[in-house]
Amino acid sequence: MTYHNLSLHTDKYQINMMYAHWKNGTHNEKRVYNAFFRKNPFGNGFAVFAGLERIVHYLQNLKFEEEDIEYLQQQEEHYDPAFLEELRNFSFTGNLYAVKEGTVVFPNEPIIRVEARAFEAHLIETAILNFMNYQTLIATKAARIKQVAGDDLLFEFGTRRAQEADAAIWGARAAYIAGFHATSNLRAGKLFGIPTVGTHSHAWVQDHDTEEEAFEKFVSVFPNNAILLVDTYDTLRSGVPNAIKVAHKAKKEGKQVKGIRLDSGDLAYLSKQARKMLDEHGLQDVKISASNDLDEQVIMHVKLQGGKIDAWGIGTKLITASEDPALGGVYKLVAKEKNGMFHPVIKISEDPNKITTPGVLTFYRILDKTTGKSHGDYIAMVDETVPKEELKMFDPVHTYKQKIVKNFEAVEMLQPIFINGKLVYELPTIEEIRKYHQESLSQIWEETLRLLNPQEYYVDLSENVWKTKMNLIQKYRKETNDLE
Amino acid sequence: MTYHNLSLHTDKYQINMMYAHWKNGTHNEKRVYNAFFRKNPFGNGFAVFAGLERIVHYLQNLKFEEEDIEYLQQQEEHYDPAFLEELRNFSFTGNLYAVKEGTVVFPNEPIIRVEARAFEAHLIETAILNFMNYQTLIATKAARIKQVAGDDLLFEFGTRRAQEADAAIWGARAAYIAGFHATSNLRAGKLFGIPTVGTHSHAWVQDHDTEEEAFEKFVSVFPNNAILLVDTYDTLRSGVPNAIKVAHKAKKEGKQVKGIRLDSGDLAYLSKQARKMLDEHGLQDVKISASNDLDEQVIMHVKLQGGKIDAWGIGTKLITASEDPALGGVYKLVAKEKNGMFHPVIKISEDPNKITTPGVLTFYRILDKTTGKSHGDYIAMVDETVPKEELKMFDPVHTYKQKIVKNFEAVEMLQPIFINGKLVYELPTIEEIRKYHQESLSQIWEETLRLLNPQEYYVDLSENVWKTKMNLIQKYRKETNDLE
Repeated sequence: MTYHNLSLHTDKYQINMMYAHWKNGTHNEKRVYNAFFRKNPFGNGFAVFAGLERIVHYLQNLKFEEEDIEYLQQQEEHYDPAFLEELRNFSFTGNLYAVKEGTVVFPNEPIIRVEARAFEAHLIETAILNFMNYQTLIATKAARIKQVAGDDLLFEFGTRRAQEADAAIWGARAAYIAGFHATSNLRAGKLFGIPTVGTHSHAWVQDHDTEEEAFEKFVSVFPNNAILLVDTYDTLRSGVPNAIKVAHKAKKEGKQVKGIRLDSGDLAYLSKQARKMLDEHGLQDVKISASNDLDEQVIMHVKLQGGKIDAWGIGTKLITASEDPALGGVYKLVAKEKNGMFHPVIKISEDPNKITTPGVLTFYRILDKTTGKSHGDYIAMVDETVPKEELKMFDPVHTYKQKIVKNFEAVEMLQPIFINGKLVYELPTIEEIRKYHQESLSQIWEETLRLLNPQEYYVDLSENVWKTKMNLIQKYRKETNDLE
Repeated sequence: MTYHNLSLHTDKYQINMMYAHWKNGTHNEKRVYNAFFRKNPFGNGFAVFAGLERIVHYLQNLKFEEEDIEYLQQQEEHYDPAFLEELRNFSFTGNLYAVKEGTVVFPNEPIIRVEARAFEAHLIETAILNFMNYQTLIATKAARIKQVAGDDLLFEFGTRRAQEADAAIWGARAAYIAGFHATSNLRAGKLFGIPTVGTHSHAWVQDHDTEEEAFEKFVSVFPNNAILLVDTYDTLRSGVPNAIKVAHKAKKEGKQVKGIRLDSGDLAYLSKQARKMLDEHGLQDVKISASNDLDEQVIMHVKLQGGKIDAWGIGTKLITASEDPALGGVYKLVAKEKNGMFHPVIKISEDPNKITTPGVLTFYRILDKTTGKSHGDYIAMVDETVPKEELKMFDPVHTYKQKIVKNFEAVEMLQPIFINGKLVYELPTIEEIRKYHQESLSQIWEETLRLLNPQEYYVDLSENVWKTKMNLIQKYRKETNDLE
């Protein structure tokens, strides 16, 4: 059986709703869905969008194979053979708009908009959310770590603790987008063109009669880039002294030990001692790297205490985002076609935060022309003209909070990716995405970037969108009251 | 580029250690590695081993493609072409022993043992841990949920929040092994033969002018198995009354509404009210299912308050194991070949829990012949004979804690899976694994199965293993003291 076809990488209810639409003859009517999340993860002030490349490949290759059809045939739903025939001929023919990968994004803004036949829009929800949620989560975590690391090197070392194989590689890619420098995963390196990095394991040391011999042999194989793991027996009494011996010997032979790696113990203390010992032996060029359950908190505290670490290898807490391991991204119906026109649709909830914003929406980043910084984001209908001179921005909940913005540029954030099923977007290289992410970050005030208790970023609605939403809420509220 | 080949699904340092062994001419020497974890996740008293089928497929298909070789060629390590040639001819030729999938396992016992050329043993570490860690984690979480759910149905609904596509399907499989009844993920259903289940989404309701119409149309398409989502507008004032209306109408037409689904609000209160309303209308056969951020805690509390829920749909907190999203499984060198013999190897650490147990090990479950329950597990060298009549079991740390066990059967837990690279194990069906898991669970005293503060299960060492370990510790302690 084909492991890799993703046409059935969806919830059964999507197929059932496709079937219900098909039976009701509404499957070719167009629907508009927005993907968004309601809350930044980790108490962060923003998220970093990632996952688009994966979504593009998914949609391009979306095709039901004969074995998928056969599988569906056996289901207790007894799908009509004509429906299965419809699936046989399925391909994505809709429009998809998305923000660029690497963009700094915020709760409740439509980071992906799908306009497609009801038939198609249902099928793709699950995979789009699966890809977007995970990669955005990891890019966001990586961006937090990047903030405390300053100019230090950051390595993604998480594969063995990742939640299966896909997470390992797409997580490595997301981390690289957000400013990591390399991954240990070679498959990620090969598939995405990310630099890779590797040291050696404790097993290499155990495998030799002495630690010194293990180091020496490793350096003889990697004469210019060996990083020696110094904590197998005792970091300061055995590992570092042996590394120093071997580094000296290497120097005499025209080789060079690149660094040492600490993998246990008190990293602040050990790194300061190790730095001192290396320096005292004239080994200022031997770098110190560290690993062992690191995250932005540990790095911050080690640095606060003057730890001397040049490179950080981050595993579990990055690749699983262990503090908050799921981004709650959702995909909601916001408009439906009737007589060739899109009509806004709302979802009501007793929780005001869960009421959706209806309409065919896009959003703009309102950049100040003088500072280059963002005043906030502005959600508008796609067919609305955004004022060029003066823009009134107001909080959609506490509407008395208003400001008039002048001297701005309104940058539309959603890009056309697929139009009528055709890819119209040139996928940027990973280096371009990584660079663009830094640019996107530079437009955000540091108050919003702060890791703890960040200032909330403004995501406002145009007056038009706000009124449409309020009218629909009133309409449904009236209908529900009538029930009593 | 081939997305799916997993030969490079490894850490770069594994390739570098293979290279170092190859350069040193030790790559064909055999090594023994044990995979184990040090701590049960979630404060649980046990874990449920899963991941073996994935590991088997990985090892069977382990082959470097030309594009992998080309990729390695470009690395800054400048690997010798003869080494790359060696990779071209690579296949797994070693032995692998593992416990059966579904087995209840405990910290520090060797759940996988690899005996292979140093060359091979390094390469496969990363993938083995990646697969074992994730699937064991999810099976364990699912087993916890199963314990509180009693006879209720359990559905895995996590795909959109899973950490990418592989996690979604292997997590669904792990949950099924541990007693879940179905998944929403169709790809998992197809690949693994797991039952699938689906209801409908809020979008289906929003898509119609009224909730009643949405329900009615859904039932007309699924006349016997429709589950109606009742919380789009207002569960008790709109959703349940509409479901009742539609269920009555369906009955008259010879159809049957199978159930309703609650997806928000106070599940204890709403389910009791909904049950009452359904029953008052003669709809005792309409089942109530619930979803929305569930886990074993929520289920336990809803049941404690008399909630009337027949089926639970569990998403995020199962598929990401959000409470504790990584099992810290490790893979440690325990013996190396010298002159055709295996010699035990230890890894020392200042943290006593991190000192490895050396030797070519296996382990036995010591089952009482009368009760069928386990006295504990007993780790021994593979070439040791386990006493048949009287077994002295003692705590390897607090050695005064001893007991003499009689009237027992010692069941060897490790199974040969690969011998000399050849698969010698017939992979059981998923139903067999699921059944075996229940059997394995039934051998454990309920004190160990308790979700909170469980009784610690005994994992003891044979006297032979214990002495080997103590001798090696003494040897290294002496050497380290000599350093001072």
